[in-house]
Amino acid sequence: MIKAAVLGATGYAGIELVRLLTNHPEVSIEILGSQSFAGQKISDVYQNLRHILEKECEELDLEKAARCDVAFTALPHGASKTVIPSLLDKGLKVIDLSGDYRYDDAAVYEKWYGEKHSSPELLKESVYGLPELHREKIKKARLIGNPGCYTTCSILGAAPLLAGKIAETKNIIVDAKSGVTGAGRGLSLQNHFCECTETTKAYKVTNHRHTSEIEQELSNIAGEPIIISFTPHLIPQKRGILSTIYVNLNRPSSAEELVEMYKEFYKDEFFVRVKEVGELPETKHVAGSNFVDIGVCYDKRLQRAVVVSALDNIVKGAAGQAVQNMNLMFGLDEKTALANAGFYL
Amino acid sequence: MIKAAVLGATGYAGIELVRLLTNHPEVSIEILGSQSFAGQKISDVYQNLRHILEKECEELDLEKAARCDVAFTALPHGASKTVIPSLLDKGLKVIDLSGDYRYDDAAVYEKWYGEKHSSPELLKESVYGLPELHREKIKKARLIGNPGCYTTCSILGAAPLLAGKIAETKNIIVDAKSGVTGAGRGLSLQNHFCECTETTKAYKVTNHRHTSEIEQELSNIAGEPIIISFTPHLIPQKRGILSTIYVNLNRPSSAEELVEMYKEFYKDEFFVRVKEVGELPETKHVAGSNFVDIGVCYDKRLQRAVVVSALDNIVKGAAGQAVQNMNLMFGLDEKTALANAGFYL
Amino acid sequence: MIKAAVLGATGYAGIELVRLLTNHPEVSIEILGSQSFAGQKISDVYQNLRHILEKECEELDLEKAARCDVAFTALPHGASKTVIPSLLDKGLKVIDLSGDYRYDDAAVYEKWYGEKHSSPELLKESVYGLPELHREKIKKARLIGNPGCYTTCSILGAAPLLAGKIAETKNIIVDAKSGVTGAGRGLSLQNHFCECTETTKAYKVTNHRHTSEIEQELSNIAGEPIIISFTPHLIPQKRGILSTIYVNLNRPSSAEELVEMYKEFYKDEFFVRVKEVGELPETKHVAGSNFVDIGVCYDKRLQRAVVVSALDNIVKGAAGQAVQNMNLMFGLDEKTALANAGFYL
Amino acid sequence: MIKAAVLGATGYAGIELVRLLTNHPEVSIEILGSQSFAGQKISDVYQNLRHILEKECEELDLEKAARCDVAFTALPHGASKTVIPSLLDKGLKVIDLSGDYRYDDAAVYEKWYGEKHSSPELLKESVYGLPELHREKIKKARLIGNPGCYTTCSILGAAPLLAGKIAETKNIIVDAKSGVTGAGRGLSLQNHFCECTETTKAYKVTNHRHTSEIEQELSNIAGEPIIISFTPHLIPQKRGILSTIYVNLNRPSSAEELVEMYKEFYKDEFFVRVKEVGELPETKHVAGSNFVDIGVCYDKRLQRAVVVSALDNIVKGAAGQAVQNMNLMFGLDEKTALANAGFYL
Repeated sequence: MIKAAVLGATGYAGIELVRLLTNHPEVSIEILGSQSFAGQKISDVYQNLRHILEKECEELDLEKAARCDVAFTALPHGASKTVIPSLLDKGLKVIDLSGDYRYDDAAVYEKWYGEKHSSPELLKESVYGLPELHREKIKKARLIGNPGCYTTCSILGAAPLLAGKIAETKNIIVDAKSGVTGAGRGLSLQNHFCECTETTKAYKVTNHRHTSEIEQELSNIAGEPIIISFTPHLIPQKRGILSTIYVNLNRPSSAEELVEMYKEFYKDEFFVRVKEVGELPETKHVAGSNFVDIGVCYDKRLQRAVVVSALDNIVKGAAGQAVQNMNLMFGLDEKTALANAGFYL
Repeated sequence: MIKAAVLGATGYAGIELVRLLTNHPEVSIEILGSQSFAGQKISDVYQNLRHILEKECEELDLEKAARCDVAFTALPHGASKTVIPSLLDKGLKVIDLSGDYRYDDAAVYEKWYGEKHSSPELLKESVYGLPELHREKIKKARLIGNPGCYTTCSILGAAPLLAGKIAETKNIIVDAKSGVTGAGRGLSLQNHFCECTETTKAYKVTNHRHTSEIEQELSNIAGEPIIISFTPHLIPQKRGILSTIYVNLNRPSSAEELVEMYKEFYKDEFFVRVKEVGELPETKHVAGSNFVDIGVCYDKRLQRAVVVSALDNIVKGAAGQAVQNMNLMFGLDEKTALANAGFYL
Repeated sequence: MIKAAVLGATGYAGIELVRLLTNHPEVSIEILGSQSFAGQKISDVYQNLRHILEKECEELDLEKAARCDVAFTALPHGASKTVIPSLLDKGLKVIDLSGDYRYDDAAVYEKWYGEKHSSPELLKESVYGLPELHREKIKKARLIGNPGCYTTCSILGAAPLLAGKIAETKNIIVDAKSGVTGAGRGLSLQNHFCECTETTKAYKVTNHRHTSEIEQELSNIAGEPIIISFTPHLIPQKRGILSTIYVNLNRPSSAEELVEMYKEFYKDEFFVRVKEVGELPETKHVAGSNFVDIGVCYDKRLQRAVVVSALDNIVKGAAGQAVQNMNLMFGLDEKTALANAGFYL
Repeated sequence: MIKAAVLGATGYAGIELVRLLTNHPEVSIEILGSQSFAGQKISDVYQNLRHILEKECEELDLEKAARCDVAFTALPHGASKTVIPSLLDKGLKVIDLSGDYRYDDAAVYEKWYGEKHSSPELLKESVYGLPELHREKIKKARLIGNPGCYTTCSILGAAPLLAGKIAETKNIIVDAKSGVTGAGRGLSLQNHFCECTETTKAYKVTNHRHTSEIEQELSNIAGEPIIISFTPHLIPQKRGILSTIYVNLNRPSSAEELVEMYKEFYKDEFFVRVKEVGELPETKHVAGSNFVDIGVCYDKRLQRAVVVSALDNIVKGAAGQAVQNMNLMFGLDEKTALANAGFYL
């Protein structure tokens, strides 16, 4: 059994990790780290866990953590940077769900996060945990920067066009819509039910941090620097992200050709489902699952591809992808504990 | 492997059965019966199933069904009555999700359903599939009348008070609130999103069919005929039933005594979670799981118990309970494929 | 023009008052009181008000308030008790939306609110602001205790049965369901969108303060002390309360007789709409309006009436009723600014 | 009093017209046209109207209609084309809510609607009913093609950039999100509550009819043909459209300059509210009102404006705009019956 510590277990990404790991046949949850709820049972904080996992939450104790094989760090921004080097020193593999270890270049991090990176030397070693693009590196990694929710959805939606050299690299626009779990469990007026239901809005227009993550990965694929427009929106549902991606093409194409290109690119990927010509994804098709669904359209009038990708932001966009990475790092079947259909209803 | 046929696979109870059975290690789904979608892949009707189950739906073929071990019939009312005797003849065990085989007495059925029962002789043999009350009979049964959603929630909520002889049998009132999946997938104006979100209503006041089912089981427990008020309500959410149950007591009591009584009554029941004194259930604690959560309060001023019970209407109230029954009928661990926490978010 | 001060203008009851008063042809809003947002424009706090009302919020200044004719106090519990005597001294009429001035008997208040009443002498003078029961007193009042949302819905739902002497006064049960605006704008985990949508729960079972208010009014109608069960529930919608009321009858009746009794009782009431036999209310029929809709059913098996009443908790259950009271107190047509249909969608 | 006929009164646009007109001091509703509900009271179909408007629905009778001054036609596509010429012959002014009379050029209509236009000669006379752009023509018009919901939101969002000659006319992208009332009251599986809540999707990507309407108006403003990407999405709320509009600029700019440009362009428009720099619209700010809110951002890295506009699709996007047009056509204050704040909650 793989001994796992989940640090930040009572946030939404953390608790989804717990949900997934309680169904994982090769994992035993040893530590539920939570500052706010230390001393309380996880099943009192999330009562759905009664009769399933009644373990107590605790503050981080590095000596105790040293007995684990892997730590998932779903900590508030900044906190993970001080904890992770210690965990690595103790010999754990670490999968970090914050933005801290997702960048190739500390300067990019520092520009978008507005602060100095505390352990830039680890950025050389950390692997961007998107298995569909970096599987072999993940298998050998000690430290994973688990990708953001918007970014997973957007990168996988655009990658085949760039890899296939049919995309113009200018004028790429990603218009993304996210459910409210993406904003976390912290209290704020904007997430109060009465302020949040029956309304939609854009936020952080032109300056959301995930922009830089998407640009890094798309630039790597394209082999040239790419700058995009990325606009996040908040929609009144719990789970789900839908990214609508606009990409001008450098030559005429067709929906058939584009769909074929996507199918070929993802032909070995269990968790990517490319829609047939004329089909489009919906977030309810992916809610509760680790799948990304991608529909591809072609606008002949404008020689432009319009790609729509969907995933569950706390599964493939966070906890599910973290488990997928763990499976790879420990030599397990990548699909273990993740091969289910989602709940649709 | 148990070979299973799911008849009526594309309704909401049916598709939840499919979801649960795709995670069941001892079951192979052989037949997906659907009149409306025969010839289409189930994964085209419910696209969340892509990469998980891409089997075609088909019309019922009794010869083919004969090769199965068990049939789940989630058919429109009436349809099941003609199909089920044939399935039994072919040697299958049958778990019927309609109201047809839930009654001890055909006369009660006929009064509440307003029509003649076509196979009353089968009522003698059929077992009311509520494992917490009828486990031993279920194990030996060939035909299960799988209980309704409101009824499971209400019966399990009231049973300990009646069994404990502390309940007055008059003035029992069950006020129940259900999510919209309970109304099924059929189109109707009342289930149109714009007519159904942001609104709550009562319906079928004084005459909902589930009243008779609850009365049958509570009367059996009490050893005397019980007549109740049962009022169903539709609330703007997908999954979940919450029953608020009012029971006058025949002597003074306390919340502590009542909670203790419930804990004792359900002490061996994995799927019933009795709340501590002062705790109350919420449907989000049970959504996506097979659990029933029960909170018990005592009104000293009125010598009255107020019990609140919650379950997921399409899991413990339909498909999950059906799988639980199947597990019992085939000698498996009752919890197989059902021991998970629900999704909370 | 009536000069009005709205104290507590930025809470949900307060802002609904502002919305209604901006449409009132005889009222000018002079003061928008808000401690949290003093110095900010109301149209920055609630941006729907841009181009309609761009007035600044301010802290309470009694000298300035003295220039007004009426004050609506939608203040946190307790605050209103210190402010209101001063406002009365300055010659204003006061409509208080808290529980402080709703009681005939300070002892009842003190029992249910757990604290001493600071101005019990005012209880002798204050009028319970339910126009359908106390219109004549309201017209002459200087101080109104504006009724609670649950209470308005429940009292109006039960009153005709008690007034008609057909009700048994024992075993009256009110099972009420409320939208989330009823919990106010304050932040709490239970009102976080992700914790609150797609779930239903009961709360404060057996001990909600509104119980005492309902009992006071029903006892007055019946001419004898009435003790009820009252159970509030939180449902995932913004506006609306639905009360399901169970009343045993002291003789056999029929739906037809009962509906007729209700129509007669409310025949002069514009804001009470009694449904025809077989019709039931829904909260969407009343959302955004000052109406109360009431449906009446009869359970022949149990000689019991089941009454379902619905209103918008922040209109007829708070701000709309306050305006209705103001209209009466100032000799205006009671319907002024309130005679609209609600928004349905 | 203006005598009005509302044809198609029981659809969502029709009933919103009825709601607005019942509050209009200068209008008397003479005819409620409805094929499906002829013979029923409108207050039985929409029970929120009880005590407000209890008039019967009826099939269209041209002789009776001839007594009216104005007809609002909210009819299914195609139906309006046969009815409208007759209404005009009878001397009525007509405000048509379908797409039939929105086009300058019948060929564009025929391309996007896939059928012959039955009365192309009327297109010469009909006026595109967007007061902010065509006020003077509307005042004199006999026939108004009332704009679509997506189009009003998108045109008003982009117009100042094109009028100001700062926009590049290539690569304009409109990504729009609509609530479900936009899909009407007709039954369809996609609008079933359980299929529609908690999910988001794109639809009609690259080929939605409103594309052509937006292109027509933007081309007119720019003085050159404009082709855009327009992508509609369905989001789980009732009311509201949010359009996110991407426009490359032909020279460097700033948020301050752009906001100033918008404020100047709309300085006389009561129903357009331009946000301050850094502010963004939300659909809850406009729900229930006739306002359009517009926020303007500037992406320095890309020399691109990102504009976010929001309106209520059945008010400013349909019924409210129709009333605004009527006010203009009859010489009333344009704001009559429309100058309210929306309901926010």
